[in-house]
Amino acid sequence: MNDETPSGRLRPKGSAEEIVSFIKANSDFLIATHVNPEGDAFGSAVALAMALESLGKKAAIYERDKVAEFYAFLPGIARVTDRLPAPRGTESLSLILVDCNTSERAAVENLRFKNTAVIDHHETEREFGDVRWIDPGAPAAGLLVYRLLKELEVEITREIAVNLYAAIAVDTGTFRFSNTTPEALRAAARLAEAGAEPGPIADAINGNWSRARFRLLCAAMGGLEILDGGGTALMVITKEMLKAAGAEPEDTENFSNFPRIMKDVKVAVLLRETAEGWKASLRSKGDTNVARVAEKLGGGGHKNAAGCTIKADFETAKKTLLEAIRKII
Amino acid sequence: MNDETPSGRLRPKGSAEEIVSFIKANSDFLIATHVNPEGDAFGSAVALAMALESLGKKAAIYERDKVAEFYAFLPGIARVTDRLPAPRGTESLSLILVDCNTSERAAVENLRFKNTAVIDHHETEREFGDVRWIDPGAPAAGLLVYRLLKELEVEITREIAVNLYAAIAVDTGTFRFSNTTPEALRAAARLAEAGAEPGPIADAINGNWSRARFRLLCAAMGGLEILDGGGTALMVITKEMLKAAGAEPEDTENFSNFPRIMKDVKVAVLLRETAEGWKASLRSKGDTNVARVAEKLGGGGHKNAAGCTIKADFETAKKTLLEAIRKII
Repeated sequence: MNDETPSGRLRPKGSAEEIVSFIKANSDFLIATHVNPEGDAFGSAVALAMALESLGKKAAIYERDKVAEFYAFLPGIARVTDRLPAPRGTESLSLILVDCNTSERAAVENLRFKNTAVIDHHETEREFGDVRWIDPGAPAAGLLVYRLLKELEVEITREIAVNLYAAIAVDTGTFRFSNTTPEALRAAARLAEAGAEPGPIADAINGNWSRARFRLLCAAMGGLEILDGGGTALMVITKEMLKAAGAEPEDTENFSNFPRIMKDVKVAVLLRETAEGWKASLRSKGDTNVARVAEKLGGGGHKNAAGCTIKADFETAKKTLLEAIRKII
Repeated sequence: MNDETPSGRLRPKGSAEEIVSFIKANSDFLIATHVNPEGDAFGSAVALAMALESLGKKAAIYERDKVAEFYAFLPGIARVTDRLPAPRGTESLSLILVDCNTSERAAVENLRFKNTAVIDHHETEREFGDVRWIDPGAPAAGLLVYRLLKELEVEITREIAVNLYAAIAVDTGTFRFSNTTPEALRAAARLAEAGAEPGPIADAINGNWSRARFRLLCAAMGGLEILDGGGTALMVITKEMLKAAGAEPEDTENFSNFPRIMKDVKVAVLLRETAEGWKASLRSKGDTNVARVAEKLGGGGHKNAAGCTIKADFETAKKTLLEAIRKII
């Protein structure tokens, strides 16, 4: 998930037409997406596989990591597999990377393919792929797949619609993040007409928390500190709190968004204890650029969502972080 | 705010065309909306006033209750006034009620008007208005005003777009509630093209909490009880908690939505201590109908959002409520 403002500066590379040609010229595809996948990765990959099959092509979906139970609502998600054809077996396949743009991000770097294509909305790390379509201005890979399906004149079935609606909804924070474009809303309208149900999909995306995760959030919110005259909100999660709630580190994802509901808060930080020290997850509103804080401390990210790890004891980590934040608010 | 499923059973009464005729036949309007107004009421009323003026008409906006600082982001909100022309002064005005359908709901029942019209998406309480356009299938009054402006061929300025986008976003939970229709998403796309910015508007709607309100939520979440094997979540707010947080009763609005993020929770309840006893605010997911619980206990509401007041001590109120809930889950 990513709430950065889409940058008008980043121009798309390649085009949907080039992907259309790649698809038309080949017949047996492996679709792969990034490790630690989320809804945009899965929804885009599954919708694309369904579209390829409707064109009489073969398509398999590879994902190294386990599919979280969380995504069971996506029709066709069960076809995602972590089993690859035997290494030589991929040599006859055409690879399409979705929502990432290097073979390493998809954990397929040790395999050989007949040829390769990339559909992504992240900035490129390096030039991978015989055909590349990268549009950093698109809020979700799902929106690129939606455009592609229009080019391919594929019928948007209910199954495809649910996958693409979920993909777009996840990456735009169900249309709350500033990357929400008119095109994303119009695509969502069309997908809702094709059978995607906005309410249940939003509930599936936002309403799938375990009790352990919710308990952890309650505990973290209970200890929230408001600093800098209200401009900074700090939440802390220790190993002990994780244990007490019966929760896992990944359960803290997006916790740092919560304090943003306060009107004066410009920056919200979650500090989580790890084996290495303290992992800081930063969120901001409007023009407050937390990427500058994260980069200064050896991390990275986007204007409104960034992160870094501080190898220090709690008091030092907190002090270092708050000092860096004070320079940008 | 309202997260009920729009009912296909409720047919619209009247039409945009009738309102168009009413507008064309008159020249001096008073737009009024309901007491305890929220974003849909304000956004719809202000956008309509701007549209009428672009047609060379005169338009004032009346609202009995104070405009919360919360709504300062709506362009033109400052023109909403709680001062009425002297009682006889309204006799030359054409009244348009927006987002409500009786003069009492708008606190204008003691005034005489030249003629009256109603634009609303709530079920009618009784037949008020010379011209009535009621569409209970529309998620927001803002969407009706949007349709009307298209009929009137009014240019959607940035100011109108922000008001209508906010109106639709508030009543659909920024496109998360099950009342989110393809039409609502398509209108949002068009309004975003006309200059409404989805990110900042969502931040303004969802990110405008006071520290006191957030503190109260933290306290309420800290004491959350999960019952019925995870199906029911109960939050309690006592007078003492309100006082400790420095918060007001209205700060608890929508608190009952939070526990819905847990995947097993079917019903979320907020019990708030009042002078009369305990006010229960109920939220549910999918087909679980909390209106049945509220109605049984003397209250009312919609399938997924309802409320009632229980005049009893805490233990009795809790027991009564949980027993009624157990019958529906």
